[in-house]
Amino acid sequence: MYDVAIIGGGPAGLSAALNCRIRNKSVILFAQDPKTTDLHKAAHMDNYLGFPDTDGATLLDQFCQHLKNYELTIKNEKILEIYQMDDSFALSSKKDAYNSKALILATGLPKFRAIKGEEEFLGKGVGYCATCDGPLFKGKKVAIVSTMDEGEKEANFLAELAEKVYYIPLYKGDLKLAENIDIIRQKPQEVKGNLKAEYLVLEDQELHVDGIFFLRESVQPSQLIAGLEFDKKAIKVDRDMATNIEGVYAAGDCTGKPLQVAKAVGEGQVAGLSAVSFLDGLKQKNK
Amino acid sequence: MYDVAIIGGGPAGLSAALNCRIRNKSVILFAQDPKTTDLHKAAHMDNYLGFPDTDGATLLDQFCQHLKNYELTIKNEKILEIYQMDDSFALSSKKDAYNSKALILATGLPKFRAIKGEEEFLGKGVGYCATCDGPLFKGKKVAIVSTMDEGEKEANFLAELAEKVYYIPLYKGDLKLAENIDIIRQKPQEVKGNLKAEYLVLEDQELHVDGIFFLRESVQPSQLIAGLEFDKKAIKVDRDMATNIEGVYAAGDCTGKPLQVAKAVGEGQVAGLSAVSFLDGLKQKNK
Ligand SMILES: Cc1cc2nc3c(=O)[nH]c(=O)nc-3n(C[C@H](O)[C@H](O)[C@H](O)COP(=O)(O)OP(=O)(O)OC[C@H]3O[C@@H](n4cnc5c(N)ncnc54)[C@H](O)[C@@H]3O)c2cc1C
Ligand SMILES: Cc1cc2nc3c(=O)[nH]c(=O)nc-3n(C[C@H](O)[C@H](O)[C@H](O)COP(=O)(O)OP(=O)(O)OC[C@H]3O[C@@H](n4cnc5c(N)ncnc54)[C@H](O)[C@@H]3O)c2cc1C
Repeated sequence: MYDVAIIGGGPAGLSAALNCRIRNKSVILFAQDPKTTDLHKAAHMDNYLGFPDTDGATLLDQFCQHLKNYELTIKNEKILEIYQMDDSFALSSKKDAYNSKALILATGLPKFRAIKGEEEFLGKGVGYCATCDGPLFKGKKVAIVSTMDEGEKEANFLAELAEKVYYIPLYKGDLKLAENIDIIRQKPQEVKGNLKAEYLVLEDQELHVDGIFFLRESVQPSQLIAGLEFDKKAIKVDRDMATNIEGVYAAGDCTGKPLQVAKAVGEGQVAGLSAVSFLDGLKQKNK
Repeated sequence: MYDVAIIGGGPAGLSAALNCRIRNKSVILFAQDPKTTDLHKAAHMDNYLGFPDTDGATLLDQFCQHLKNYELTIKNEKILEIYQMDDSFALSSKKDAYNSKALILATGLPKFRAIKGEEEFLGKGVGYCATCDGPLFKGKKVAIVSTMDEGEKEANFLAELAEKVYYIPLYKGDLKLAENIDIIRQKPQEVKGNLKAEYLVLEDQELHVDGIFFLRESVQPSQLIAGLEFDKKAIKVDRDMATNIEGVYAAGDCTGKPLQVAKAVGEGQVAGLSAVSFLDGLKQKNK
């Protein structure tokens, strides 16, 4: 059980980690390859005060160096789902599961849009990790929409359990799929259903299924944790960077404009210190 | 007429100036001696991401170096009063008067409390610059409360015009005052009046006066500009760092906790970019 789990290793997540470690909280930081941050893409930067005339990759390297002075657990893993427990959060990647008392979302700018109905049926037939939830679909019908060839492995795994697997690849190239998998090359339009997802609507057909998995390079904050409030596409936060869920904070591009490094670093600090206050409050309560 | 006037040369004000200049707006920055910033007092600092193991004075120096790459007007002057005009702001220091279309308050943590009634009667008999407003008090009774010996000059100047000058020094040492000035060594408690200030209440007497000047090392944001909204002692801002007054933004310690450099730099950036959007909106409107 970590004090704080931080999702994202860009400037916002790193600043949050630094400020939580300075206050001596245990931290697990989920930082995928630095190349996945938007900061890494900035060819020339001159507006982070104190660092004239630099570029994103250099700056990110200096940020990471700074954190080397502190002990913290860093995992190069993508978090796929987060569940709110009574007094903590359970986070799962494809590799493992983790627990923390507080949570900081620093996931950067969402890179795609969910399709209609996808968020509504999240956890009600819609999921983002076929191998995690697979056993639930034993003897059932499942559709897998994937933007990357990794999805083929998940489809093959599910094909051993499920009655029927449809694979909808959103990328080009050869597919290595078990024979009993149906391949459909059409863009998904909508998830429909009543209490749970029942249909995946494609360009000119509707698949009647029990489960639908969307496998994409990135995960939207709205897909990570249920019940999070948004203001348009940005996570809704107050001046303490608190979201509407107790113990969950957010910082950086995922909280909205302006999309800039100094804002991300400042918000990461505030989110980190707010999480610290929250944890200290818990300690008081349990005395 | 400058596009943006920024009050305060700490991390918040410098970051705002940098971001406004990058967007090519003309900037006048009121930055008193760097020693007056709180940053300068930090003996050891490790929580501004990218700058491990440093101190406030070194960091401030690096911040100032960064700004040397940009043209802007920097004045080592304390702004005493700001008036809102139709489409601009008029700022006055003891030396001169300035005009800007947008305003960013980055004045740091307020260093003292106003006494009861002081803010209520600001501009209605209460002022912060005796030499500026002196002519209004020709033949009248005036009290001057001062925390510094500079106040003696202002008292001597007023004594040539006013019918009566009371001098209330809040510091020790000899005073060089004209003979017709009454010296009262008591702490001021309250300003009382009806439509305008009429009485300065001291420990065991009330002075019946037409004007009261408070001369202190620092000026509170609440005293700088009339009508500014506060949340406890912090300037009230939204997520764009906009205050309740159109065209006025705030950043850094003056907007509340946490009192930290990264927060100040991030907020300075957001305030700067919001001022830029505001100015671009004005340009559209005037087309
Ligand atoms: C081309 C370009 C130029 C730019 N130029 C400038 C500039 O000059 N000045 C400036 O201030 N800003 C600039 N920016 C913007 C700046 O890069 C961003 O504002 C900043 O990087 C935001 O930081 P962040 O930490 O919020 O997000 P990011 O830097 O995007 O980092 C987010 C990280 O979270 C990870 N993540 C997301 N979801 C998960 C998950 N579920 N599990 C694990 N990890 C996850 C991502 O993989 C990524 O590594 C530029 C951006 C681009 C693209
Ligand atoms: C001893 C000490 C240690 C600290 N340690 C840390 C630390 O380790 N890490 C950290 O992040 N933070 C630390 N801080 C806090 C940090 O210094 C502040 O959060 C930061 O300086 C705030 O920046 P600012 O720009 O809002 O205000 P300031 O840095 O205080 O600058 C405000 C400036 O505005 C000027 N000003 C005010 N009114 C006017 C006016 N009317 N006209 C003209 N100029 C005006 C002031 O003279 C001053 O120069 C420390 C502070 C202190 C005192």
